[in-house]
Amino acid sequence: MSHIPAYATQAANQPLAPFSVNRGAPGAHDVAIDILFCGICHSDLHQARNEWGNTVYPCVPGHEIVGKVTAVGSGAGKFKVGDTVAVGCMVGSCGHCEACAAGEENYCENGFVGTYNGTLPDGSRTFGGYSTAIVVNEDFVLRVPHKDHLAAVAPLVCAGITTYSPLRHWGAGPGKKVGIVGLGGLGHMGIKLAHAMGAHTVLFTHSPRKADDGKRLGADEVVVSSDPAQMAQHAGSFDFILDTVSAPHDLNAYLVLLKRDSTMCLVGAPPASTPHPPLRVPNLYGKRRALAGSLIGGIRETQEMLDFCAAHGIVSDIETIAMQDINAAYERMLKGDVKYRFVIDMQTLKDAAKAA
Amino acid sequence: MSHIPAYATQAANQPLAPFSVNRGAPGAHDVAIDILFCGICHSDLHQARNEWGNTVYPCVPGHEIVGKVTAVGSGAGKFKVGDTVAVGCMVGSCGHCEACAAGEENYCENGFVGTYNGTLPDGSRTFGGYSTAIVVNEDFVLRVPHKDHLAAVAPLVCAGITTYSPLRHWGAGPGKKVGIVGLGGLGHMGIKLAHAMGAHTVLFTHSPRKADDGKRLGADEVVVSSDPAQMAQHAGSFDFILDTVSAPHDLNAYLVLLKRDSTMCLVGAPPASTPHPPLRVPNLYGKRRALAGSLIGGIRETQEMLDFCAAHGIVSDIETIAMQDINAAYERMLKGDVKYRFVIDMQTLKDAAKAA
Repeated sequence: MSHIPAYATQAANQPLAPFSVNRGAPGAHDVAIDILFCGICHSDLHQARNEWGNTVYPCVPGHEIVGKVTAVGSGAGKFKVGDTVAVGCMVGSCGHCEACAAGEENYCENGFVGTYNGTLPDGSRTFGGYSTAIVVNEDFVLRVPHKDHLAAVAPLVCAGITTYSPLRHWGAGPGKKVGIVGLGGLGHMGIKLAHAMGAHTVLFTHSPRKADDGKRLGADEVVVSSDPAQMAQHAGSFDFILDTVSAPHDLNAYLVLLKRDSTMCLVGAPPASTPHPPLRVPNLYGKRRALAGSLIGGIRETQEMLDFCAAHGIVSDIETIAMQDINAAYERMLKGDVKYRFVIDMQTLKDAAKAA
Repeated sequence: MSHIPAYATQAANQPLAPFSVNRGAPGAHDVAIDILFCGICHSDLHQARNEWGNTVYPCVPGHEIVGKVTAVGSGAGKFKVGDTVAVGCMVGSCGHCEACAAGEENYCENGFVGTYNGTLPDGSRTFGGYSTAIVVNEDFVLRVPHKDHLAAVAPLVCAGITTYSPLRHWGAGPGKKVGIVGLGGLGHMGIKLAHAMGAHTVLFTHSPRKADDGKRLGADEVVVSSDPAQMAQHAGSFDFILDTVSAPHDLNAYLVLLKRDSTMCLVGAPPASTPHPPLRVPNLYGKRRALAGSLIGGIRETQEMLDFCAAHGIVSDIETIAMQDINAAYERMLKGDVKYRFVIDMQTLKDAAKAA
């Protein structure tokens, strides 16, 4: 493989620009993947711009990868050349802690290896899916059961699993009333998944204009969260609420909508400098409610999610872009101008490299 | 019964003073109780001084009551004259909501009737245990299995059940590492109970001088919470943390000490005007942790707790006072000058009434 085309940032204040990544030959347990599509997660933008303060440059983002297997290592037996596969947020973990033993590598006690901006055991840095190919340990490669719409499959391995895992963990299903807060990249997957799991699914959005879209995606009801009267009608009635909103907002308004012994789970977080408004503790203890958080999902569960989505005909709602339009796409994301996920068609990068 | 001696406040800025309460004859399902002892809960002080803004005056506090049955209603079959009994925070609930049906009257969806400052279905107001007698529906009366130390039993039906219920709910027991934050009226019961349940019990206190007392009460370890190095040694190691501190404090410092999928439960709350510092959401989602709350316990579980305490020889650590010293006791409570609960010996009120 050696040097292959990619897009990278060289500093927090620089745009993404063409770059070349050195991908080694697949090791014994690795799979080499020709990347067809890569979704754009908000994390890509945060990392590219060093908004978490831990970016090592150059940085090649991208952790919603779908592609075809082009080679397998001598000891790798899970995939064969030509398989359609996906790679999500992780490409490694310690493998021996309690979380890894439980198949929850996302909670690895020694820290999982991110698909980009991570460090592998051999000390090498990881570069993500804004590139034409990647080499990944087979234990972190997912099988894609979908036959088509592969571009729209890409976001499932981040936005999909991030919502699927807590919905499963807290028992979303028939007979349960489940709320999804926010209709963005995560929220629109939460709506589709909760609906497919059989839950009575309620979208909370501050934009009344999103109501139709929410229902089209699978919401049984839409509640405009800025309307206290609408909110009050649902007091104490939810079995589970999944909050996908990262911007600071009042969690108390949702906590009071939970039944006794029910949980609200956060999958987004505001910047440390602008936290959510204070919790009112009686909203927790009055009905023994809980506020929890969840972070993506393990490899086993991510495969389960892909299989579930294929069986239910679920993909992400996407807009495909060319690699060359990545910086404009970031600006549009910041304005919420995407329904509901950008996906890079990597053929555009391959074509540009060929022409150069 | 009719008029019996009591202590009441007549306004938020008035001290407690002698008062007379009209207790009706026991109805068909009621039990009349001669009050021997009444513990002093911090809630008594908040309510007496209208710090929650909902006090109706005159206010007779007291919801940690131990006494002897003196009469039973024609339809009441659970108790007989002479039985030693207790009354905690509730004297009624709707009886037909999901929570009541589950035996969790403390979470009654229509609001339980408080032992004081509450309103009974007939519209009458409730007056608490700072009095020589009380009449209560038998369904809200507990059997006291303890043979002696009855004064020290009184706090069990509030401070005891408030800590017992979450410890049981979140599975404190052998093989579990349980933290108790704060060593006051609630915390000292939490230590005793978690230890008796077989958990490895760790006291968190900001006062190094409380370490010896914590160990005497049953803590296996004491962590000085103001020492970051001591705190860091326990990162990610707790199965459950019970936080009994009402004053505003940084919850994040404790959340990071929880294992994956573990819970920290709050049983105190700061005033709305001085909330806890902001949550750092990654402390929740990094290990799928939860922050929850719990409020006293149901009647069935309160009886279970009393039986558990009797079987394990557990009572509260108390200082007995005369009814006439109640205002001084409140001032000492505000300074934290009590180990660990004041209990009023109601004989002092009976004697004063006789002398008058």
